[in-house]
Amino acid sequence: MPTRSEMDAWRSFLRAHAKVTRCLEAELLTEQRLSLGAYDVLAELASAPDRSLRMAELAEAVLLSRSGVTRLVDRLERAGLVVRERVDGDGRGVVARLTQAGANKLGTASRTHLAGVVKHFVELLDEQELQTLRVLTRRVADAQP
Amino acid sequence: MPTRSEMDAWRSFLRAHAKVTRCLEAELLTEQRLSLGAYDVLAELASAPDRSLRMAELAEAVLLSRSGVTRLVDRLERAGLVVRERVDGDGRGVVARLTQAGANKLGTASRTHLAGVVKHFVELLDEQELQTLRVLTRRVADAQP
Repeated sequence: MPTRSEMDAWRSFLRAHAKVTRCLEAELLTEQRLSLGAYDVLAELASAPDRSLRMAELAEAVLLSRSGVTRLVDRLERAGLVVRERVDGDGRGVVARLTQAGANKLGTASRTHLAGVVKHFVELLDEQELQTLRVLTRRVADAQP
Repeated sequence: MPTRSEMDAWRSFLRAHAKVTRCLEAELLTEQRLSLGAYDVLAELASAPDRSLRMAELAEAVLLSRSGVTRLVDRLERAGLVVRERVDGDGRGVVARLTQAGANKLGTASRTHLAGVVKHFVELLDEQELQTLRVLTRRVADAQP
């Protein structure tokens, strides 16, 4: 069982994540009418080869929540920001691909999002602290199966 | 705009959160048939006065995701772990209250969950590192509006 101070560290970590992502989501919704999950999907597709990923790859890639990726892609497809395409011949099945409209939307939305990351996260820590946080959280992330 | 190394720190933080919570959720689902969100709701109610919270308080309290608290409570109510009660006379409206079955379930599930927190988070960091992570993430959490 974790000690009290170990649980304090865990709960601070969870609270920081929850509070920062709530702020980022609120700003994206207000200024761009985009949820943080939708932003995350557009950003992952933008950095993928051919701007496309299989649904399973996309679900694995998004950092915020694996659940609801299918519904997110449905919504993004209706908005014209993503298209689903059947990939023949390589057995990969269906991919989601970023459209040009999706790339444009991401470009605009990223200004809101990155300004939020600076305001709600980066500016609260000095350079050494950011580096420490990067090292510790990378170790935690890389240790997971 | 954030620098490359600032974005690295931010993305490591997100990845650590996503990967740890996925592991914790997978273990809770396998061993206890409980989602992490459901666990979080039971835990928040257990530590609240009268083991009950207004729905809005509950949505604010849960650390993992604000969305879907209503649906979570619906599901927990069908499982007999939570009841909704109308609170008369103080204008608070409807509260969700932990049942005795819910408290029992939380007791069992917390063994799985806390063992997971140790394995996937606490054990990867030494005492000083945990303390550092607690301080930095608390500062980030407390700075949010």
